[in-house]
Amino acid sequence: MRVLGIDPGLTRCGVGVVEGVPGRPCKLVAYYVVYTEPDDDIALRLLHLDNSLAELVAEHKPESVAVERVFSQHNVRTVMGTAQASAVAILAGSRAKLPVQTYTPSEVKAAVTGSGTAGKAQVTAMVTRVLGLDAPPRPADAADALALAICHIWRGGTRARIEAAALKAKQLARRSRGGVR
Amino acid sequence: MRVLGIDPGLTRCGVGVVEGVPGRPCKLVAYYVVYTEPDDDIALRLLHLDNSLAELVAEHKPESVAVERVFSQHNVRTVMGTAQASAVAILAGSRAKLPVQTYTPSEVKAAVTGSGTAGKAQVTAMVTRVLGLDAPPRPADAADALALAICHIWRGGTRARIEAAALKAKQLARRSRGGVR
Repeated sequence: MRVLGIDPGLTRCGVGVVEGVPGRPCKLVAYYVVYTEPDDDIALRLLHLDNSLAELVAEHKPESVAVERVFSQHNVRTVMGTAQASAVAILAGSRAKLPVQTYTPSEVKAAVTGSGTAGKAQVTAMVTRVLGLDAPPRPADAADALALAICHIWRGGTRARIEAAALKAKQLARRSRGGVR
Repeated sequence: MRVLGIDPGLTRCGVGVVEGVPGRPCKLVAYYVVYTEPDDDIALRLLHLDNSLAELVAEHKPESVAVERVFSQHNVRTVMGTAQASAVAILAGSRAKLPVQTYTPSEVKAAVTGSGTAGKAQVTAMVTRVLGLDAPPRPADAADALALAICHIWRGGTRARIEAAALKAKQLARRSRGGVR
């Protein structure tokens, strides 16, 4: 299965595309970092991110999308931007009718390294090994997005297909009730 | 000018459409509350909100969109959802190539009541009076969205047009640099 992982951020948003099956080494397809200018208007930044992610989904045609779940951090201002970017990331998948799964940072670390408290260097080292790369992916935002995609492949498979079917059923049910109440 | 105001929320998102010119009573066009189910998957909730707002923008063809700016509140979990909804709200405007302006709650209160610390009841009373309604709009989420639209009309006008021109110029410049780096 082919998965597009997104590590959401408003200033830097990591995107990693990986192919594989549960428990086996994976194949790197591509990775990117989408940047937006902190000085730009928020409407412009979100639109740029939205356009860029839509383009990458259209180009790589993943079967599902994995997005890092946002938690509160120390810097409230950063959290807002990350939460906004995560909404754009999730929509990039659901608007393309793909199943979207969110994972906490510790779920990703546990899936890739075996420990939910692994450090950044350890995650990057495992991503490099699992994908059979000669050197770690740079910048780090891309490594986290690739780890998300690997996490989804190793944990996912059948589950993703079940969720896609459930999502479609719910969308059909909702449409018949009308979009706006 | 016709303005669509959005009071972003993931569970309840208020939308108000108002026509008017600075400093004069305004005309109510329509108001709505878009609901999403807290138990539903986040991807489904964001998609439902995205579809609903896109429909309302297409139906009412506003000249600009006003969105309440999200600040940190006590409940971090609520803030995340509000921030995600605000991203969807802002995109609903910018994807339709409309100028989007964000306002803080106190900016809205000051514009509508004359006081940045006015209470909810006072804002609702002023919205009712300014729009010449027989009774206050219900539910309250709709009143806040209408207050945003009134705030934008009374503060805006020429500014909105200047920003639309600037946004278009930036988008053209950005497109020539390429969408993804």
